[in-house]
Amino acid sequence: MKGLHIIADLYGCRNTEMLTTSDKLRELCVAACKDAGLTVLGDHFYQFEGLDATQQGGATGAVVFAESHLAIHTWPERSGATLDVYVCNVTCDNSGKAEQLFEVISEALQPADLLVERVWRGRDLPLKKRLAAVQ
Amino acid sequence: MKGLHIIADLYGCRNTEMLTTSDKLRELCVAACKDAGLTVLGDHFYQFEGLDATQQGGATGAVVFAESHLAIHTWPERSGATLDVYVCNVTCDNSGKAEQLFEVISEALQPADLLVERVWRGRDLPLKKRLAAVQ
Repeated sequence: MKGLHIIADLYGCRNTEMLTTSDKLRELCVAACKDAGLTVLGDHFYQFEGLDATQQGGATGAVVFAESHLAIHTWPERSGATLDVYVCNVTCDNSGKAEQLFEVISEALQPADLLVERVWRGRDLPLKKRLAAVQ
Repeated sequence: MKGLHIIADLYGCRNTEMLTTSDKLRELCVAACKDAGLTVLGDHFYQFEGLDATQQGGATGAVVFAESHLAIHTWPERSGATLDVYVCNVTCDNSGKAEQLFEVISEALQPADLLVERVWRGRDLPLKKRLAAVQ
């Protein structure tokens, strides 16, 4: 369960094509997962329609891999996207793979700014709670 | 982009069947999304094999819905699971849907303990950064 979860909100993304084309976004995400050495199990992506004829719709999707998941949602009308990368440590520390995946995807979207939080998943409970949890 | 992301690590889960059966986990997650009033677009779930003949494997998956996503990974050998529920506010505050979804899934797994963090996604950047991001 232990592993690094990178949570990023991207603002002012200049790669409009990537924000509005689920096929391209899917291709980017799946390739980046494989390049990071992750074992892709499957994915689901979806193309939204624009709110009216003048707008292009956003894209959304998730990649499930053996070491956890990537999820991404785009809002082209706000030039924004939210990105989650969670890579658990199966037999070794996989934090580097999480950082690589995050870097490749976020750089591809060309954000002007971003808010990033890193959450360590599966932290050990305090001993008292651990003992209670196994009873 | 704005919305509540609930990040939960579940320990000492007593519902072993749910931890080890991806079909049942998928059924639970998709139904809970629909019951919370979310628009399910698709999903991908996967059943792991056990490390050896004496062990049952874990389950993993993600549900993509119009309002963002749910992701869940289980570790039956540790009686644990990690759960992510992110529901963005499309036309109204959807925090209640995120809380409902989180409650239904986590209660179904019957954890003895859990660590929960709530992250507000898509927060406004400070004005100076916002102006820079649109240039």
